Amino acid sequence: MDVAFSLDPALPKRRGVEQAIRSAAAQGLLPEGSRMPAARELAADLGVSRGTVVAAIDDLVADGLLVTRPRAGTFVARTPTTVGRAAPEAAPTAPRLDLRPGRPESGSFPAARWAAAVRRAASTALMTNPVDDDGAGSLELRTELAAYLARSRGVETTPASLVVSAGYRSASTVLAVAMRSLGMAEVAIEDPALPGIDHLWRSAGLRVLDLPVDARGARTDRIGRDTDAVVLTPAHQFPLGGALDAERRRDVVAWARRTRRFIVEDDYDGEFRFDRRPVAALQRSAPDQVVYAGSVSKTLDTRLRLGWMALPHDLVAPVRASLLTLTGGVPLLDQLALADLIRSGDYERHVRRQRREYARRHDVLLRALSRVGVPVPGIPAGLQAVVPIATALRPPADADGQIRSGDFVTHSLDRYTRQHAQAPAAVVGFATPPRGTFGTAIDALTRWLQQDPR
Amino acid sequence: MDVAFSLDPALPKRRGVEQAIRSAAAQGLLPEGSRMPAARELAADLGVSRGTVVAAIDDLVADGLLVTRPRAGTFVARTPTTVGRAAPEAAPTAPRLDLRPGRPESGSFPAARWAAAVRRAASTALMTNPVDDDGAGSLELRTELAAYLARSRGVETTPASLVVSAGYRSASTVLAVAMRSLGMAEVAIEDPALPGIDHLWRSAGLRVLDLPVDARGARTDRIGRDTDAVVLTPAHQFPLGGALDAERRRDVVAWARRTRRFIVEDDYDGEFRFDRRPVAALQRSAPDQVVYAGSVSKTLDTRLRLGWMALPHDLVAPVRASLLTLTGGVPLLDQLALADLIRSGDYERHVRRQRREYARRHDVLLRALSRVGVPVPGIPAGLQAVVPIATALRPPADADGQIRSGDFVTHSLDRYTRQHAQAPAAVVGFATPPRGTFGTAIDALTRWLQQDPR
Repeated sequence: MDVAFSLDPALPKRRGVEQAIRSAAAQGLLPEGSRMPAARELAADLGVSRGTVVAAIDDLVADGLLVTRPRAGTFVARTPTTVGRAAPEAAPTAPRLDLRPGRPESGSFPAARWAAAVRRAASTALMTNPVDDDGAGSLELRTELAAYLARSRGVETTPASLVVSAGYRSASTVLAVAMRSLGMAEVAIEDPALPGIDHLWRSAGLRVLDLPVDARGARTDRIGRDTDAVVLTPAHQFPLGGALDAERRRDVVAWARRTRRFIVEDDYDGEFRFDRRPVAALQRSAPDQVVYAGSVSKTLDTRLRLGWMALPHDLVAPVRASLLTLTGGVPLLDQLALADLIRSGDYERHVRRQRREYARRHDVLLRALSRVGVPVPGIPAGLQAVVPIATALRPPADADGQIRSGDFVTHSLDRYTRQHAQAPAAVVGFATPPRGTFGTAIDALTRWLQQDPR
Repeated sequence: MDVAFSLDPALPKRRGVEQAIRSAAAQGLLPEGSRMPAARELAADLGVSRGTVVAAIDDLVADGLLVTRPRAGTFVARTPTTVGRAAPEAAPTAPRLDLRPGRPESGSFPAARWAAAVRRAASTALMTNPVDDDGAGSLELRTELAAYLARSRGVETTPASLVVSAGYRSASTVLAVAMRSLGMAEVAIEDPALPGIDHLWRSAGLRVLDLPVDARGARTDRIGRDTDAVVLTPAHQFPLGGALDAERRRDVVAWARRTRRFIVEDDYDGEFRFDRRPVAALQRSAPDQVVYAGSVSKTLDTRLRLGWMALPHDLVAPVRASLLTLTGGVPLLDQLALADLIRSGDYERHVRRQRREYARRHDVLLRALSRVGVPVPGIPAGLQAVVPIATALRPPADADGQIRSGDFVTHSLDRYTRQHAQAPAAVVGFATPPRGTFGTAIDALTRWLQQDPR
């Protein structure tokens, strides 16, 4: 028996010992019939005299909790009712037809391939990899990423300018603290955007300027005089789904260069353009002013929490330092597994396969909506589409931006807006349902759109 | 060929196209001999006229970079020298005799067992686990942890009060932001402590009070009137190695209860006490005032970045919300793998095995140091010991607190102190060297301690 007892210092000692044993038993640490440690041992553990322990045990025997058998020892006679323990928590179950945005196809994760890569990494790399983390992450992964990001997104970077992150939010937390430490005070963020991303930047001590978004993308003309950095989703605005138009791209790059300010390019789904090759990352136009951020959240699984930033030279050291201080680094086995997948070509094959599937689904969605007379704005890309809805279909404010109808659930655009109102719409994630239920999910969506809104 | 080209908006179009192709070739995206996409295709991708692309290609043919073969197309003739790419980064190599503190035995990680658990998790659990993360982490892991922490450390908690974290630093970042959001403004932190932990709390906007540490542990009498929370390592002060004495334990618990303030209990190596059962966690004395934090960093590998917090009721919701906003959650496969290891008993078997090994090493270290007349303060516990050194052996301030001698490296205590000076000492991590080099490392340490300090 290896049970840790602890005295409540607020109680007299004898009462404290009694309480410690009671509490251990109530927690199931002393099952019925189990033998108690010797009084001498208990006394040493608890830092009290043997006499105190013997007295407390006598109390518990009198109480019927313990029983003493001559020449055998003291045993637990019964387990007291557990007190103060919360009712068991039920695991939340996912709705059957899940059209909430943000996640790749359920069941598409290359599980066997990933597990094999983790096995290889665990068996050799933990030994050979340096224990000294400088906040940049695995050099092996950064080397693969530099080449991959150049191939797939035109990013101009080097392993030395890359930092591995635990996904986009963690990357942003680290970046925000690093920027604040450099004296930056204001960040402009698209409105609508990823929920809570404004809170994240405020938590690091920065002011947030809400940047409205129209059909041409973020209103880059509204960037403030004192704005130090602007967070954009230029390839595919999240969640509205448009691309930042060429003139605004030029303007914002020119602004960053002229004023030596920074652009944070959130390239969350840049791998998924369906009608043409994707426009290259904005980062390529100004590698010294653009932080390029990406992750595996849309390509593999959001729950891996693994991403990267390609950094302007001046930000490399501050970001590495912040990452080490705030997080201690990114899980190494996952980094090495991803490096393995990229090196083998399996990562890009998986992305291509999923791109074909999402392109097909996007097409099915648009045709279904067109049949019920609902136009979908935005470019053919990504994993989500904005679907205009009747005002009466807008969910009440207390629904937390969830739209539910029968078995199906999606998000209201309200969940993503902050200061600047948008016309009522649903943000439909068409990637998530497994192949077998995708059609049913789209049917449920179109039925809901047609319902009498009265 | 699936290359993303990008126009530099600062250049005239023809020059921009030329530059885009040059840059792609310099990055190795267009290997020698590869065929260029058709001018029409390139024009569509870049958003320029076909004529502009043809003109730019003419320039590059004139330059010798491209070559046109009649009826075959345009090909890359040579790869230009890569410009602006940093020299390849060398992976830092670990010193041969590594006595820096903080890491478990190199090579002890149960790699095959972990990989098998990840495989099981990846093949089934990603499908069956809810996609809705509420910031608490896997219920499966929290259920295992609640029972494990009660068994091993006497922690009184429930799955509903536990939050899974990406290690202690990430947990602290999330906790600090949550506490700040509740209006807390001052945290007291032991001095010496984990490097940078004061910066971490300051980054969230809190004031830091440096709490001196003496032979009886943290000076809890120095907690301020306005201190909202105090961060302690009561079981085994890091890095000094003492235990918080009983009177101070009582005092600080009484303070927290009386004033409704919080204690953050960093139980970083509570599993490793060599001479007796460990004193139970402080948390047990006041579950409503103590945040209990632990991790696998000392039991499995620091580079897994996986830990937990048992939270007072009032902090559960704010901490979950902060965790979701700041990090997006903790990698799920690792959580499920750890749950698997705990459930099977393999985790505790591994901890017991390592405890025996570290106890042996602690004994070897103390005997070796006693032979050269160096007394080691602190209790027999954990993975590191403070070794007093001659003033002349203290490394210069620019050495970043590293002590190096030949093949061997350890840390100076200076690396961990902030405001309150300590006598010169090394913080020796005796757990890290693989079994084959442990003896050699201790020999190197004792030789260094005996060297003429002139």
